[in-house]
Amino acid sequence: MTAIRVIGTGLIGTSAGLALSRAGYDVTLEDPSPTAQTLARDLGAGTLDADAIPDLVVVAAPPDVTGSVVASALGRWPSAVVTDVASVKVAILRDVVSRRADLSRYVGSHPMAGRERSGTIAARGDLFQGRAWVVVPHEGSDPDAVALVARVATDTGAAVRLMDPEGHDAAVAAVSHVPQVAASLVAARLRDLTEPALALSGQGLRDVTRIAASDERLWTQILAGNAGAVREVLAALHADLGEVIAALATVGTAEGVGALEVLARTIGNGNLGYALIPGKHGAAPTTYAIVAVVVPDEPGMLGRLLVAVGEAGVNLEDLELEHGLGLPFGIAEIAVLPGSAEHLARELTRRGWRLHS
Amino acid sequence: MTAIRVIGTGLIGTSAGLALSRAGYDVTLEDPSPTAQTLARDLGAGTLDADAIPDLVVVAAPPDVTGSVVASALGRWPSAVVTDVASVKVAILRDVVSRRADLSRYVGSHPMAGRERSGTIAARGDLFQGRAWVVVPHEGSDPDAVALVARVATDTGAAVRLMDPEGHDAAVAAVSHVPQVAASLVAARLRDLTEPALALSGQGLRDVTRIAASDERLWTQILAGNAGAVREVLAALHADLGEVIAALATVGTAEGVGALEVLARTIGNGNLGYALIPGKHGAAPTTYAIVAVVVPDEPGMLGRLLVAVGEAGVNLEDLELEHGLGLPFGIAEIAVLPGSAEHLARELTRRGWRLHS
Repeated sequence: MTAIRVIGTGLIGTSAGLALSRAGYDVTLEDPSPTAQTLARDLGAGTLDADAIPDLVVVAAPPDVTGSVVASALGRWPSAVVTDVASVKVAILRDVVSRRADLSRYVGSHPMAGRERSGTIAARGDLFQGRAWVVVPHEGSDPDAVALVARVATDTGAAVRLMDPEGHDAAVAAVSHVPQVAASLVAARLRDLTEPALALSGQGLRDVTRIAASDERLWTQILAGNAGAVREVLAALHADLGEVIAALATVGTAEGVGALEVLARTIGNGNLGYALIPGKHGAAPTTYAIVAVVVPDEPGMLGRLLVAVGEAGVNLEDLELEHGLGLPFGIAEIAVLPGSAEHLARELTRRGWRLHS
Repeated sequence: MTAIRVIGTGLIGTSAGLALSRAGYDVTLEDPSPTAQTLARDLGAGTLDADAIPDLVVVAAPPDVTGSVVASALGRWPSAVVTDVASVKVAILRDVVSRRADLSRYVGSHPMAGRERSGTIAARGDLFQGRAWVVVPHEGSDPDAVALVARVATDTGAAVRLMDPEGHDAAVAAVSHVPQVAASLVAARLRDLTEPALALSGQGLRDVTRIAASDERLWTQILAGNAGAVREVLAALHADLGEVIAALATVGTAEGVGALEVLARTIGNGNLGYALIPGKHGAAPTTYAIVAVVVPDEPGMLGRLLVAVGEAGVNLEDLELEHGLGLPFGIAEIAVLPGSAEHLARELTRRGWRLHS
């Protein structure tokens, strides 16, 4: 049986321990905090046998100490494979290299799973279910070590993808780190507003800024750890933004030739980029039809609506709720495959639901 | 009975016609497109009596022609009050002033309602229910004219708020126009990515970029129409972003003193700004507790879950669905008041639901 040592029993480490213990692995845990370590054990993430010799070490430490913990693990267990789960990869590889560790047994990785909450108590055994887990070998990684990390990641329920460190860091810069910076900067500007101005906030603003609520300490480390790749994308965005600002300065004046084109191209390029984001189940994006229904704001009403959707034999693809200012009802926007929308609307009306039309 | 003329039967004009006809107003419609005009009438938004003399004219034209249509309406009906519904206000007032119309009868306004879809056919009689409708008098607006516009807006079901043109434009720049530019710019950067990189997209990216799918033509006009206020906020954001880029260039080097502080402050200021956004029902933001439940991806299952939530006597505050890559189930994250979470979790477990814990 493969023995696994999880070092760092926060959200990711404890969740990995839970998933791998359930999958039949022999998991031992360690954390600099005796409280976190004991809590993780009590949650069922593994045991605390410090003398166990692992086949695989999963380093789930904060990004800024990951390199040193990986190097130390490679030294402590001379036959173990070591992986880490930090969300940046080039900087950590460089750090491990600088510590002259046995690199062939090191294979970086990055489970694309996280929650707004952090810490041991937020852990879930199925945190990785259906998420991507990127396995990131370097040029000197032993193929057997890569295979072991991929197998264990798969056994957490994750879908394994292989990338090289540079490709990984460039990808997460664009799909994760830059959106975080943009959301934070847009939200930060709200600090200048008065209450009446803030009262005009709508769903668009809420969506754009939701991740601005993320953890400051963790994100400082992530951005610092992927500084090069994030800077490259942000520099391109900074240039695009400069162009928009220049266009806004001249639009409607004699010098404003081409200004409208800059604005139109900005929105148009956003349309194109948005269309590239994979949809549900990692498949190509699908356009759904929306059936909007008025739902009284009472316990169980939304459930009754969705039972009616099920009785109509229609599969709900997505659901959005809108609440009005001070109103005793909301609007449920039910996304379904386009071919089902008319049938659903008819069936709901027949059952007495009021469509929002 | 107050007679209303709606000029422009797109989404907003037709929705206003539907709402005001239902509220008992005598609504007549006109649009440069005979098709749109007839369709709006057939939907029940009003009649096509071109000779009717209105007490109030609602101009719901595209932003770039609104000023000229307002001025022409002030001339056509010398005793009518005229309002418009464009999402920018200073530029339109300036345009109306330049046309030497009778300004005392003009009162700008802006219903904070919209949809991803546009056009007559997307109209809804309850589009304004529970939304803010900002009434924006200028210094010379007649108080009776302001009162009439406010009364009619209220009768659509909207919550009226009064702002001056500059205050309105500064507010929507920060809560609506700048988030749109940010979302578009972040989404535009995705065009450089390969498919494996795009496959790492998560919910955070989807949220930040959702409004990047918005209409190019409309948004070009909105940004151009509010160029001054949008530019001011974007310039501040551009400076903040430049600081982040400079910090990323030096972080971890000898010159990088203070770089980590810049990154931490960026995320921290985003936390502060996000916390200012009013929550559901326009009230102060509330922190909800989340109960996460595994839901098989079959018709009706989500409905059955929510019926169970209702049977537990718990009011659902919000709901988010997460789908896994290639998995036959999803996770429903049910937001409830913190005091209800434990009770709900127990009741759901008792009914056989599997919590995602």
